[in-house]
Amino acid sequence: MNIEIIGFLAGLFTTIAIVPQIIKAYKTKKVAHLSPVFFSILLIGVFLWALYGFLKEDYPIIITNSISFLLNGYMLFLYFKYK
Amino acid sequence: MNIEIIGFLAGLFTTIAIVPQIIKAYKTKKVAHLSPVFFSILLIGVFLWALYGFLKEDYPIIITNSISFLLNGYMLFLYFKYK
Repeated sequence: MNIEIIGFLAGLFTTIAIVPQIIKAYKTKKVAHLSPVFFSILLIGVFLWALYGFLKEDYPIIITNSISFLLNGYMLFLYFKYK
Repeated sequence: MNIEIIGFLAGLFTTIAIVPQIIKAYKTKKVAHLSPVFFSILLIGVFLWALYGFLKEDYPIIITNSISFLLNGYMLFLYFKYK
């Protein structure tokens, strides 16, 4: 198997992983057991990754982490909406 | 600011982010609002990243994602223990 395909799948999985959590929070409106600190640190982390990709002109890093930033930001928004 | 420092901080933040969620789950023993699919996809994703790092002989990628794999695996273990 091509190494780049593994990297692509790795990026795809870590980027879309949060979607089931967003769907669960959106449907149940229950978020009390989630840690807002978790999603906040993750949000800062993926922002820094996107910045790193921008400075390195690495488009896969920019694109995956920008999507992660939006998804994590929306999850954090749902947390504060439903808590 | 050095670009590599931003990359280091990005890796540090996205790796340790899950720790507050682990602590919250461990202390409260309440995990019903968490999505096991989220942590499962994340676990597969960081495993693939570690494999990618191994094949590319990129030690920062191997180390950060191996730590993430252990932390996410422990979080998933807590989920199935307390659900």
